[in-house]
Amino acid sequence: MDLSNYSPINPPQRLLMGPGPINADPRVLRAMSSQLLGQYDPAMTQYMNEVMALYRAVFRTENRWTLLVDGTSRAGIESILLSAIRPGDKVLVPVFGRFGHLLCEIARRCRAEVHTIEVPWGEVFTPDRIEDAIKRVKPRLLLTVQGDTSTTMLQPLEELGAICRQYGVLFYTDATASLAGNVLETDGWGLDAVSVGMQKCLGGPSGTSPITLSPAMEAAIRQRKCVEAGIRTAAHQDGEDEMIYSNYFDLGMIMDYWGPERLNHHTEATSALYGARECARLILEEGLDNGIARHKLHGDAMLKGIQGMGLETFGDLKHKMNNVLGVMIPAGIDGEQVRQLMLEDFGIEIGTSFGPLVGKVWRIGTMGYNARKDCVMLTLSALESVLTHLGFRTMQGAALQAAWDHYRGSC
Amino acid sequence: MDLSNYSPINPPQRLLMGPGPINADPRVLRAMSSQLLGQYDPAMTQYMNEVMALYRAVFRTENRWTLLVDGTSRAGIESILLSAIRPGDKVLVPVFGRFGHLLCEIARRCRAEVHTIEVPWGEVFTPDRIEDAIKRVKPRLLLTVQGDTSTTMLQPLEELGAICRQYGVLFYTDATASLAGNVLETDGWGLDAVSVGMQKCLGGPSGTSPITLSPAMEAAIRQRKCVEAGIRTAAHQDGEDEMIYSNYFDLGMIMDYWGPERLNHHTEATSALYGARECARLILEEGLDNGIARHKLHGDAMLKGIQGMGLETFGDLKHKMNNVLGVMIPAGIDGEQVRQLMLEDFGIEIGTSFGPLVGKVWRIGTMGYNARKDCVMLTLSALESVLTHLGFRTMQGAALQAAWDHYRGSC
Repeated sequence: MDLSNYSPINPPQRLLMGPGPINADPRVLRAMSSQLLGQYDPAMTQYMNEVMALYRAVFRTENRWTLLVDGTSRAGIESILLSAIRPGDKVLVPVFGRFGHLLCEIARRCRAEVHTIEVPWGEVFTPDRIEDAIKRVKPRLLLTVQGDTSTTMLQPLEELGAICRQYGVLFYTDATASLAGNVLETDGWGLDAVSVGMQKCLGGPSGTSPITLSPAMEAAIRQRKCVEAGIRTAAHQDGEDEMIYSNYFDLGMIMDYWGPERLNHHTEATSALYGARECARLILEEGLDNGIARHKLHGDAMLKGIQGMGLETFGDLKHKMNNVLGVMIPAGIDGEQVRQLMLEDFGIEIGTSFGPLVGKVWRIGTMGYNARKDCVMLTLSALESVLTHLGFRTMQGAALQAAWDHYRGSC
Repeated sequence: MDLSNYSPINPPQRLLMGPGPINADPRVLRAMSSQLLGQYDPAMTQYMNEVMALYRAVFRTENRWTLLVDGTSRAGIESILLSAIRPGDKVLVPVFGRFGHLLCEIARRCRAEVHTIEVPWGEVFTPDRIEDAIKRVKPRLLLTVQGDTSTTMLQPLEELGAICRQYGVLFYTDATASLAGNVLETDGWGLDAVSVGMQKCLGGPSGTSPITLSPAMEAAIRQRKCVEAGIRTAAHQDGEDEMIYSNYFDLGMIMDYWGPERLNHHTEATSALYGARECARLILEEGLDNGIARHKLHGDAMLKGIQGMGLETFGDLKHKMNNVLGVMIPAGIDGEQVRQLMLEDFGIEIGTSFGPLVGKVWRIGTMGYNARKDCVMLTLSALESVLTHLGFRTMQGAALQAAWDHYRGSC
């Protein structure tokens, strides 16, 4: 094979201001370039235990089972749904964007009886509406998305835990896009399971998915416990329920691998674990609340700037995530042409949309390492330049001034 | 949270001479420390296409669908089994070690009707034996392991493709531990699907799994095609068969993500992809056959050295993998004490065993970046020192001399 066309990895310089992935914090990439360890090296198992402790603080939980699932954010989602849902279980999914549909689809693949309630894209649910549906459906699990980047909306979850407890429902949320940029209180809000991804507010690369499981969720999962034939001994017992549809996502096995028995399952993705550990260290060094406030500051500055440019925003701003903004593509402007000029001539990526919003909405992120003033100002400046070039009339400098004014008023 | 106990990642220096993971090639770690790109950045999709082309050469195949599954090696295995096996399908698994049991277990979770044939650990199957079982069982799929690190054996696969073709059987092999250290001819041997992991002979970290699918396997998988509700349009049609038990491992969707439509699925684990690309570049720069010869040279040198030390080996040496050796723990020696002294006082890791071999066999690897003369010599020297220290009598220097003799005779 002629390898002359396959040069060393050397990606072009990009400022990633879409809905994720965003630029990884350089400290995370440096951590990931460290040499590997054996799976059962005391230094490795120590790192695994530290990751559990660090992510307990990030998730705000005392849950023992706070660990990594090796795969992208949807690996974390799927591990929880596949491990918890028994065929025929009723689940309720409030759908307010693409990732609610994803939860439905995964639950259907688990052979659940899936019930949904829906609001138009750009809105969220009141707790009353969800409680009514719980009373009607009587689900075993409530599956929610906290922040759905497809619509930029943040579903309020504070009151749902008490409702779930009252009706004996297990309460899960997908916080892939929201955690560390918006408040999430796993224990305070009575969540039984949460999963996230690295490539949004956590500031790392996609590839491993932190999750946390409450004791009630652990008990539900242990009912389906299974030990691999190749490594089982007489001391091992399987659970009472039918085994789940996956070995890779069998959280009973994954807990046994992260727990004191260290029962071999997959070979932990060590580089990804190094990265996840550094992401948590960065977040906790800054302080979780400080980091959330930073996401709000720069997210609001981006919003003010976009409004100052005379552009309309998408969705109910009262329920917008701190870290991503939907911007209506103005009439007469080709949204893809703008994205292309931003990328090719300024090295800045902003996001397109999915489903009903395709061609109508850009999504601009300010998250993780890129929730910074310079990222906001560069993006607004370049966007004004591109729109002016394409004939969209804005007041010169107004967007930037609005952002400056916001920073001056907030600091 | 007090972070003073959570210092930056700084793993101790280790020479990983177990059955994998092994030390990653430093070039791979450097590639992985590169900054991220957006999912649909032309530079990113170009890298994805290059990964497909490079792994076609590594797998020795023309298969269009040669791509990465984001997860560890068993993610690759499971994606193929879950996507291909329909509930009730008959599968045949020749079991000669732990990873044959794993294939059975995953197939059972897919609700297959699983048939097995077995040989004692340390042996492999003749093609006749497998053909007889195919005639009897009439499976839809034959699921094999090429190299099973639990026993160090390499199952010959050359003749099985023709047999599978004759009886209309789809032919899969798990080459996690063997590819690039032992001959594998995907097209030449008529394989319909192969999966591997990074942390063995490929010289990278665990975390992404290259796979390849023949046109026949693609057709079987397309029957179960499904498009996510959140991103589907009127132009999309689902397949005829029931949808698979997983969204994450739905290879129909993963092909649509890697194919020209670039239909969004997961967010590609970019750092892992950078690493996988560099691993393939390293292998093809050396030349795949040269790399396999290197694995044989150093694997044989390790074998000669171990024999020179007066230690017995495990299993049928005619069918040993080039890259890993089973060593009988001598009577009166505590295998774990030896492993601990090797690790703590020499920084060298050798492997323990699973199942029936626990406490009886060490497994010593010479693979990927660590298939090198210095790694072999250091390991033999340290092992001789530890065994001498513990009172096991060897002829001083004989192990090293045997290895030197082997190198002199082979170069």
